[in-house]
Amino acid sequence: MTIQSGRNFLHTPGPTNIPDRVLRAMVRPAVDLNDADFMAMALSCFGDLQKVFETESNVYIYSANGHGAWEAALVNVLSAGDCVLVPETGHFSFNWSVMAESLGLEVDYVETDWRRAIDPDMIAQRLRADSGHRIKAVLMVHTDTATSVTSSIPAIRKALNDTGHPALLLVDTIAALATVPFKFDEWGIDVAVAASQKGLMQPPGLAFNAVSQKALQMSEKATLPRNYWDWRRRHGREFYSHFCGTAPVHQLFALREALDMVHEEGMEAIIARHQSLAGAVRSAVEVWCEGGALSFNVTAAEERANSVTTILVDEAYNATALRETCSSRFNVSLGAGYGRLQGRAFRIGHMGYLNEPMILGAIASVETCLAVCGIPHGAGGTQAAIASLSESGS
Amino acid sequence: MTIQSGRNFLHTPGPTNIPDRVLRAMVRPAVDLNDADFMAMALSCFGDLQKVFETESNVYIYSANGHGAWEAALVNVLSAGDCVLVPETGHFSFNWSVMAESLGLEVDYVETDWRRAIDPDMIAQRLRADSGHRIKAVLMVHTDTATSVTSSIPAIRKALNDTGHPALLLVDTIAALATVPFKFDEWGIDVAVAASQKGLMQPPGLAFNAVSQKALQMSEKATLPRNYWDWRRRHGREFYSHFCGTAPVHQLFALREALDMVHEEGMEAIIARHQSLAGAVRSAVEVWCEGGALSFNVTAAEERANSVTTILVDEAYNATALRETCSSRFNVSLGAGYGRLQGRAFRIGHMGYLNEPMILGAIASVETCLAVCGIPHGAGGTQAAIASLSESGS
Amino acid sequence: MTIQSGRNFLHTPGPTNIPDRVLRAMVRPAVDLNDADFMAMALSCFGDLQKVFETESNVYIYSANGHGAWEAALVNVLSAGDCVLVPETGHFSFNWSVMAESLGLEVDYVETDWRRAIDPDMIAQRLRADSGHRIKAVLMVHTDTATSVTSSIPAIRKALNDTGHPALLLVDTIAALATVPFKFDEWGIDVAVAASQKGLMQPPGLAFNAVSQKALQMSEKATLPRNYWDWRRRHGREFYSHFCGTAPVHQLFALREALDMVHEEGMEAIIARHQSLAGAVRSAVEVWCEGGALSFNVTAAEERANSVTTILVDEAYNATALRETCSSRFNVSLGAGYGRLQGRAFRIGHMGYLNEPMILGAIASVETCLAVCGIPHGAGGTQAAIASLSESGS
Amino acid sequence: MTIQSGRNFLHTPGPTNIPDRVLRAMVRPAVDLNDADFMAMALSCFGDLQKVFETESNVYIYSANGHGAWEAALVNVLSAGDCVLVPETGHFSFNWSVMAESLGLEVDYVETDWRRAIDPDMIAQRLRADSGHRIKAVLMVHTDTATSVTSSIPAIRKALNDTGHPALLLVDTIAALATVPFKFDEWGIDVAVAASQKGLMQPPGLAFNAVSQKALQMSEKATLPRNYWDWRRRHGREFYSHFCGTAPVHQLFALREALDMVHEEGMEAIIARHQSLAGAVRSAVEVWCEGGALSFNVTAAEERANSVTTILVDEAYNATALRETCSSRFNVSLGAGYGRLQGRAFRIGHMGYLNEPMILGAIASVETCLAVCGIPHGAGGTQAAIASLSESGS
Repeated sequence: MTIQSGRNFLHTPGPTNIPDRVLRAMVRPAVDLNDADFMAMALSCFGDLQKVFETESNVYIYSANGHGAWEAALVNVLSAGDCVLVPETGHFSFNWSVMAESLGLEVDYVETDWRRAIDPDMIAQRLRADSGHRIKAVLMVHTDTATSVTSSIPAIRKALNDTGHPALLLVDTIAALATVPFKFDEWGIDVAVAASQKGLMQPPGLAFNAVSQKALQMSEKATLPRNYWDWRRRHGREFYSHFCGTAPVHQLFALREALDMVHEEGMEAIIARHQSLAGAVRSAVEVWCEGGALSFNVTAAEERANSVTTILVDEAYNATALRETCSSRFNVSLGAGYGRLQGRAFRIGHMGYLNEPMILGAIASVETCLAVCGIPHGAGGTQAAIASLSESGS
Repeated sequence: MTIQSGRNFLHTPGPTNIPDRVLRAMVRPAVDLNDADFMAMALSCFGDLQKVFETESNVYIYSANGHGAWEAALVNVLSAGDCVLVPETGHFSFNWSVMAESLGLEVDYVETDWRRAIDPDMIAQRLRADSGHRIKAVLMVHTDTATSVTSSIPAIRKALNDTGHPALLLVDTIAALATVPFKFDEWGIDVAVAASQKGLMQPPGLAFNAVSQKALQMSEKATLPRNYWDWRRRHGREFYSHFCGTAPVHQLFALREALDMVHEEGMEAIIARHQSLAGAVRSAVEVWCEGGALSFNVTAAEERANSVTTILVDEAYNATALRETCSSRFNVSLGAGYGRLQGRAFRIGHMGYLNEPMILGAIASVETCLAVCGIPHGAGGTQAAIASLSESGS
Repeated sequence: MTIQSGRNFLHTPGPTNIPDRVLRAMVRPAVDLNDADFMAMALSCFGDLQKVFETESNVYIYSANGHGAWEAALVNVLSAGDCVLVPETGHFSFNWSVMAESLGLEVDYVETDWRRAIDPDMIAQRLRADSGHRIKAVLMVHTDTATSVTSSIPAIRKALNDTGHPALLLVDTIAALATVPFKFDEWGIDVAVAASQKGLMQPPGLAFNAVSQKALQMSEKATLPRNYWDWRRRHGREFYSHFCGTAPVHQLFALREALDMVHEEGMEAIIARHQSLAGAVRSAVEVWCEGGALSFNVTAAEERANSVTTILVDEAYNATALRETCSSRFNVSLGAGYGRLQGRAFRIGHMGYLNEPMILGAIASVETCLAVCGIPHGAGGTQAAIASLSESGS
Repeated sequence: MTIQSGRNFLHTPGPTNIPDRVLRAMVRPAVDLNDADFMAMALSCFGDLQKVFETESNVYIYSANGHGAWEAALVNVLSAGDCVLVPETGHFSFNWSVMAESLGLEVDYVETDWRRAIDPDMIAQRLRADSGHRIKAVLMVHTDTATSVTSSIPAIRKALNDTGHPALLLVDTIAALATVPFKFDEWGIDVAVAASQKGLMQPPGLAFNAVSQKALQMSEKATLPRNYWDWRRRHGREFYSHFCGTAPVHQLFALREALDMVHEEGMEAIIARHQSLAGAVRSAVEVWCEGGALSFNVTAAEERANSVTTILVDEAYNATALRETCSSRFNVSLGAGYGRLQGRAFRIGHMGYLNEPMILGAIASVETCLAVCGIPHGAGGTQAAIASLSESGS
């Protein structure tokens, strides 16, 4: 083991940096689950999560990771053999579709080249073709961290509306929430899936569903077997019913603190900060790309995520060695190319509890490692990031 | 809010006291999930959990609570319409049976008076009657915290063996593991269910399955839809497959530390300690019972749990007021009567990270509150506990 | 090393139990010492310490332990060769007198039998005899943890007033503050010495002086060389002058939290709680004494400290073995006999962050160990403690 | 209060970043000061501090800040009226001289222009002129954080040796230790002064003296009154004598962890890391200086500290506004100009727990703020830092 001094710069696309306040909130004994203060604290999180999702509809908190909340979204509204439409956003749309299949659903998976946001016209076309309404739900990944594509959820909603197709709109916003706008009610989403360890700045271990009235109604008829994930069981008068058993005490204290921080900074300011920091990363990458060996995975600038940037590496060069150098010499953790991009890309996460010096330190380190690893790159990426931040008035 | 000085004495039957070492293990940043040290740490927990369960078979770690691991145990080995035999140990056997039903299983629920361990002859009788082998699994709660009954798992196993019935033996040892002996392989258990927040001294948020070869084979044919809980998916070469997505980083650091503590103390010593401390509680309660208003819920001394003691309160007296006095005046948290015993009992948890002064402090406080609340009780319960500990040579 | 499960019961007479809130307050990065929020937080402690001391006069915070604040009290008001009167309260009055001598002061040390509070008449007599006013200060230890004697500071003040002697009254209230009333202004104290790790519930590392106007004036003329301890240098406009250099950042966050807790509970309630818990200890000890082998060191009940109880052990029995049994078998830490009482006594600390179950757990453990060690003791000490708490309505 | 997301980049010249490991070491209850494990841990720190100072002579640990250890160094070896020679290194040599005067010493203070290391010939000249050996000690600040000058201690020692002057060599290495080589024995230092919160990565609250045999002998004759600081009293058989009273429990756990980290990384590697990171800062500053508004305070490159860099700002520009912008917009804390440089400089601290991305993040942020504040600066400072790190093979 190389001894490394100084902080790890965690720029994988999740989990993300945990604020000291959130860590501190977990330094406490376990509690009596019937303690009135504890119960009030726990219950207050539901309402504040509604604000995060911008919904007046129901939110559910699971002791689980994001995959758990994916499963919850599916099993609550679907029945064996139901068809779901899954437009490919990257590896996570693929994984979600695999899960759907394994749960006995039929999957209409629409492959893409991984480099563009989902085309709403394509969705509309598919829906129109489904005149018999076999498709019961569209499964959309808002931001896929494998590709760093962010698709427009309102555009997808519009496609559904325009075609008059009754399918539910299920949105995985795990890697997008609290980095770009997310308006559950306004956008007409039916089920949102999110988790604690990305934009919400907590340790992994909690996952969420936000659920529309339409989805709730559909859950009454859906017949996939379920208990732990079952929304209907999580409305009981007993406190424990909200968590289907023992509440995740320490995770809830962390959630409470993180929600306080979200409220204090304000969602608008949080999104502006992500926009500005992502802009700095993109400015640097743009310069680096001039060297010919690197390119943005996402071709259209406006479709690049605020949470992570996937950078393709020409096959003449070693993306893995770059990441390893960043990690071993600089203590900067980057994401690897994932799924189809394994070994051919690296990813810079830039979501959550981040600020300018953190992102600049990461960018400058990557630039240093590009030099160390002999990967051709346009000179001055970090200076471009600096210029970007000077202008953005972040 | 009354201001309370001093530590809370947490004697609900879970979550339990978290050692400082375990809390400290969570005071750290999130990590790169591909970090080699982290992955090695996480994977080491599986092997050490095998030692805790005393098995060489597989163990699975879920980001979930105990109810999640209940569901995992069911959906992995059963198919729609399968029948399960559920002998009533208290409210938790009831809840598990409700879950089974909700998942589309048929439940053969055997009611009891809640005051005795499960009679293996009754099990044998039921199994013999099931000549067609409709029963696919027996769901046994090892210790039910509602009643504080501990049943003999080897005796149940013997009943299965004696009748030659092929049903699987599923054991919920959530509230028993690490307080009494538990020998997965030797006892011929097929699926064990456990969780982090009881004898294993961690925050709630992790749950476990230990799984026999027979159960693994059965899981190949079982058709209940599953993905998050699916054992088969948790064997992948990729690290994330072990957790079906993002690993519960901080909970795993807590688990690692708790497993180190279990190893250092030694399971034999841990069980002896629980035996001794539970003995002190029972000595005190025995004296208190002489006052006529209190009685052990579990009538047979040898069936009383090492983890929790349920004490019935004569209806002339107010069990709720007793608990509230303990909590508000003494900062001692007791468990309430649960399920059928609501309002008619209180429970003293005595599992996990506990020692003599902690249990004596709790006992003496309860005794003081019995006096304050005017509940008749034999004098000198605490002295009896002291005497018990003087002799036990703990 | 014996592996010990469960919490240590820390009943040495300092340091004392640190509340989780206070520990949590220290889990944070270092700060920019010029940060406005930090400076405001740090400065707010001075005012709140004034409330604790019940003074409108100056308070000084030292990065030091109690001995440091002893030295500060002496060097700020005295000059080489000055005489101080030191009535013997136990080993701490002795140590303070040794310090005074080593700093070039003349010490008039009045020996006692260690079993009674300081007799104000004796003080008056000494002062009257000092018609030339050679005595410049009286050094009083409010509660001496070696003996557990608490002396009446108002009575000593009255002795000074009655004799019209101009000597300053210096009071070491390290082991008394926040366990019994302390009224700096009303009682006419000139310098108070206190520290962080006793009634104030913090880690050791901070020490305090409260200083009257008279003492401040005297400090202008006092000629003992000083800089770090010099009150006059700690009034500068610059923030760092308050701490004579780098502020003890983490200790100040701990202090801030502890002061919040003191304020929330209220000094009156804190003292009542100490009175009640000390009463429980004394009730138990009284019963134990009936066995003939044990006795209170302090003969007069009203002179026994609220913070610690010193119990003499007949020389036929082994006080050290008792403490070691308590520690190794029960994880209860008692204080040893100190100074003149080495090997002949043990001490039960009962100050700071404590409540009924904590003290009852300790008492019951000591009682168990008395049995284990074969030390004769009246039966039922813990029951007497229980009875005491039932009545005290704490 | 502006809400700031992300970590504070703490680049004041102390306190410095505290590693999570060190913070974690303090998340624990107070201990019985007679606990054998605790005492062994505490005592082990003395030996490991000897390794840090590279001495086989004595080390003393004070509950105090650096000013306390300054006072300790003086009062242990000097007597009233003794003369000390203090070459001006910046504001800290001045403050130390003020302390010396206030303690009744005569100070021969040699003013400088603050921009050069101390000239050993000047020292030799002064010592030769002191044929009567009135000068009893030379007070040298190894690195003065006000100026960021590092002087050569061996050269000063040589001056003493060459002149055969018997004065002791007292060295304040508070801001140099663990950033540049420090060889107490080899260099013939008599008293070293250090503190916990700089290169040693702990919270402020501990300070140290390392003491030569010659200084120990001199302390036998020195007559300045002392007790808390007295080395002679800190050799007692009793554990508490090492700390003159209550040991600073939590600070010692922090110290133990920090010493482990120092040992794991190795002093040579630590110094190389500081050299490399300081080199990156200096590379950036060099480029910025080309803009004409900024200049290094220290004119000779080889005299610039590895721990902090002081940058003069032309009076046409606002150094304070620059720092405030860095702090409020970027959460990067810089040091202000101090003493004579107040309002005319800013300082970038780069000592302690730091790595490449941390320093690059700080450099890039400063560069951004120079642009934001309209302070002319050569373009490409950060790129120069990147180039410096690419080459340094850190």
